[in-house]
Amino acid sequence: MSDVSEPTPPLLAEPAVVTAGVPILTEALRSQAVDVTDVDWQPPPEELAPALDRIAADPRRPAANRWAVTAMMEARPRVVGIGLAADDLGLGRRQFLHSGPPIDWERASGPLRGALIGALLFEGEAETPEQAEAICDAGEIELAPCHSRGAVGPMAGVISPSMPLYILEDEATGRRAYSNLNEGLGKVLRMGAYAPEVIDRLHWMRAVLAPILDTALDRHGPVDVRALLAQALQMGDEGHNRNRAGSALFLRELAGDLIESGHATAQVAEVVRFVDGNEHFVLNIVMPAAKVAADLARDVPGSTMVVAMARNGTDFGIQTSGTGDAWFTAPANTPKGILFAGFTDDDVNPDIGDSTIMETYGIGGFAMACAPAIVRFVGGSAALAQEKTRSMYEITLAESPFLQIAPMDFRGSPTGIDATRVVTTGLVPAVNTGMAGRIAGTGQVGAGLVDPPLACFHQAVEALAAAAPDSLAPDPVDG
Amino acid sequence: MSDVSEPTPPLLAEPAVVTAGVPILTEALRSQAVDVTDVDWQPPPEELAPALDRIAADPRRPAANRWAVTAMMEARPRVVGIGLAADDLGLGRRQFLHSGPPIDWERASGPLRGALIGALLFEGEAETPEQAEAICDAGEIELAPCHSRGAVGPMAGVISPSMPLYILEDEATGRRAYSNLNEGLGKVLRMGAYAPEVIDRLHWMRAVLAPILDTALDRHGPVDVRALLAQALQMGDEGHNRNRAGSALFLRELAGDLIESGHATAQVAEVVRFVDGNEHFVLNIVMPAAKVAADLARDVPGSTMVVAMARNGTDFGIQTSGTGDAWFTAPANTPKGILFAGFTDDDVNPDIGDSTIMETYGIGGFAMACAPAIVRFVGGSAALAQEKTRSMYEITLAESPFLQIAPMDFRGSPTGIDATRVVTTGLVPAVNTGMAGRIAGTGQVGAGLVDPPLACFHQAVEALAAAAPDSLAPDPVDG
Repeated sequence: MSDVSEPTPPLLAEPAVVTAGVPILTEALRSQAVDVTDVDWQPPPEELAPALDRIAADPRRPAANRWAVTAMMEARPRVVGIGLAADDLGLGRRQFLHSGPPIDWERASGPLRGALIGALLFEGEAETPEQAEAICDAGEIELAPCHSRGAVGPMAGVISPSMPLYILEDEATGRRAYSNLNEGLGKVLRMGAYAPEVIDRLHWMRAVLAPILDTALDRHGPVDVRALLAQALQMGDEGHNRNRAGSALFLRELAGDLIESGHATAQVAEVVRFVDGNEHFVLNIVMPAAKVAADLARDVPGSTMVVAMARNGTDFGIQTSGTGDAWFTAPANTPKGILFAGFTDDDVNPDIGDSTIMETYGIGGFAMACAPAIVRFVGGSAALAQEKTRSMYEITLAESPFLQIAPMDFRGSPTGIDATRVVTTGLVPAVNTGMAGRIAGTGQVGAGLVDPPLACFHQAVEALAAAAPDSLAPDPVDG
Repeated sequence: MSDVSEPTPPLLAEPAVVTAGVPILTEALRSQAVDVTDVDWQPPPEELAPALDRIAADPRRPAANRWAVTAMMEARPRVVGIGLAADDLGLGRRQFLHSGPPIDWERASGPLRGALIGALLFEGEAETPEQAEAICDAGEIELAPCHSRGAVGPMAGVISPSMPLYILEDEATGRRAYSNLNEGLGKVLRMGAYAPEVIDRLHWMRAVLAPILDTALDRHGPVDVRALLAQALQMGDEGHNRNRAGSALFLRELAGDLIESGHATAQVAEVVRFVDGNEHFVLNIVMPAAKVAADLARDVPGSTMVVAMARNGTDFGIQTSGTGDAWFTAPANTPKGILFAGFTDDDVNPDIGDSTIMETYGIGGFAMACAPAIVRFVGGSAALAQEKTRSMYEITLAESPFLQIAPMDFRGSPTGIDATRVVTTGLVPAVNTGMAGRIAGTGQVGAGLVDPPLACFHQAVEALAAAAPDSLAPDPVDG
């Protein structure tokens, strides 16, 4: 925790009415001009009642959740430099990280397989995609979730030993998190593409982009990512699927030191043009920033707050503060949204990527009201964007004093998902995401919205109940 | 006009209710949850009825206004390079341009006097402020409005012969407009400051900033400012008092060519740091872009559209398409808003600057819904920002197909002020602005909102009526 005085957190700052499953009530309120948010209410399964009662009776919970959400909100993650996966994450030969909960090659979806094939090519472990696939089929690679090493990766999230990494560090605690560098859109490794242009770009990123960024960051000093996000949210970004403002602000801030980095002028110009052409450049910086913040909220006994949501293209998984490193998983849903020309719904892989760390942190889909341009992906309106954000206050613990929603009069973003509230309301976190092609090698096919499976939260509630102290729950209490 | 097919312009795309002066109607509508915008309705003065009748009977008017607003909206202004006031505007020794309608030294307000003193120091015509003032007192300077030379300048808007200029050019017609370069905030010439740091900065801008920008623009090719504004409006800018996104986007686009400009690395780094530290850098680019567009709508016989609104710190003036270069002026009001520390309301100069060209063009205060951060200046809410924008549809001719309001579901910005509608509704254009200190030499003291005086529009209506053909208005018709 920093020495900043604690913000007065939890509890909703403004009254709001959320109705669930009872249309007549909604209509009555609307006719009285009350601000009403409709949600698809699903009652919690009967068999979860004892677990919810047990959690409700746990006296540690309010303080634990307050501590966890405050730690996450007050984190001040800063980019401090560029590292290397072999050094900073201890990755050895043929060891690879991937997004989401643990998975093996057999169950891996197309985009994760494609990214692993590409990573073997990039590492020089294979000459052809066929050789790379044979290595994987023979079980000659080791896989682990990015999250298990303090890292996050968008989409397939594959990180291999020779990849450069952003190093994010919390100012007060020194805690670190990592991500690889963003490749741009279209045919890119994180979307499962591995054509020669993809591998060439990765080599250029290691040889040119990373050293120039590293020198510039050294000269510039740490970049405060929470401050950058706070500005970007006032500039049409929501920090997950729209990062145009954040990317421009990052480049603007670093431009002077890029120019004075001492690297060859032509290469520095290549770097700034690469950033200019990549609206998601800053995604791989804001993701590990959110990861640092969420990690500071881990392992608080009794806390029901979600500290990770991540997908590997097959499963969606979550972790909560009170249940350590356990993953609660269920089959990932498939995103709905706008497809690039030439693709159909059948081409879309199920949900993939660690980028849901942004929603875990309280922005992304939770800050949709900041980015009305995004709801156009799904034919929605600016009002729908505000409704999405408003409904997220129902499942969160606090409103961030640092990350605010300007179109809602600077109300703090809904922050800190309470797994029990997700279960009791049946309201799942709002998630914006990119869409990868189902077939290895395809790349990106679109972008849209996706629902996390409720079953993950059901499992988490069972585990949280099991971890609650016996002696303190003699009588069932209303959840 | 470009060869792009005409957008379907005029007439409101969505029904909206605007009530004026009849609170009981407003309340009745509100109780039925109808979207109602209250405006301060002032009936047109009795004596203007004949003029309004005469204009209403002019059969040229609908087509003339459609032509004018379409020309303005379809303009495609691009920055093509950096010029010099002596060359491009033909300014000779001791000739200065200023913002707003014509004015002489005797009636000039503090900030305009301060800027003229500073310009004489910058030009080397005086060694001290006292010498400069004596030159002005002796009538040894020549003044003309920026608008009279196809230029615009923010705040005092003083342009002197040795100042570098942005050259904006419409793609289809080749028509040009100009502005000087933005100095940043605080103690700056345009706010009436002339301390040595102000003059030093102007010399640096001429010697370093201008040549480097010019080389970069040459290498890069023209920058499409309408496209840049369209993006910036989706990023929290309204293009007048908030230009953070536009400034960042401009730098991002030009960065590669700045780096490869061949100028000294240290100076290129100075330039990008100067831009990084100046949230209004792009204001002096978007203003002449709006000026080019508005100029394309000039001199359409019968058009009642406003083609310039500008203030010199003493008078507010407007020009309309159907009345040539005539100015219709009235005393400028004083802006209300947030003052910088140490200043009071008494320190604020009346409204000053050509920057109302942004509202003339249909953004700035008209696109306030895009920039809820701005209404905080006046203690307002995001809802107030949307109401401001919504009310402007009442006095405008069209909705821009190019510049859109994302928080209002991408409705086109209200574009093309109809002087007669201002008079019949009594609703004046919404204007966001900076505030200059009343005393010469002070600099900026705050930022806020200001009302243009209705009297300018009354005069314009009289003149438009006088210009209407006699034979076509035999009988009075309802205005």
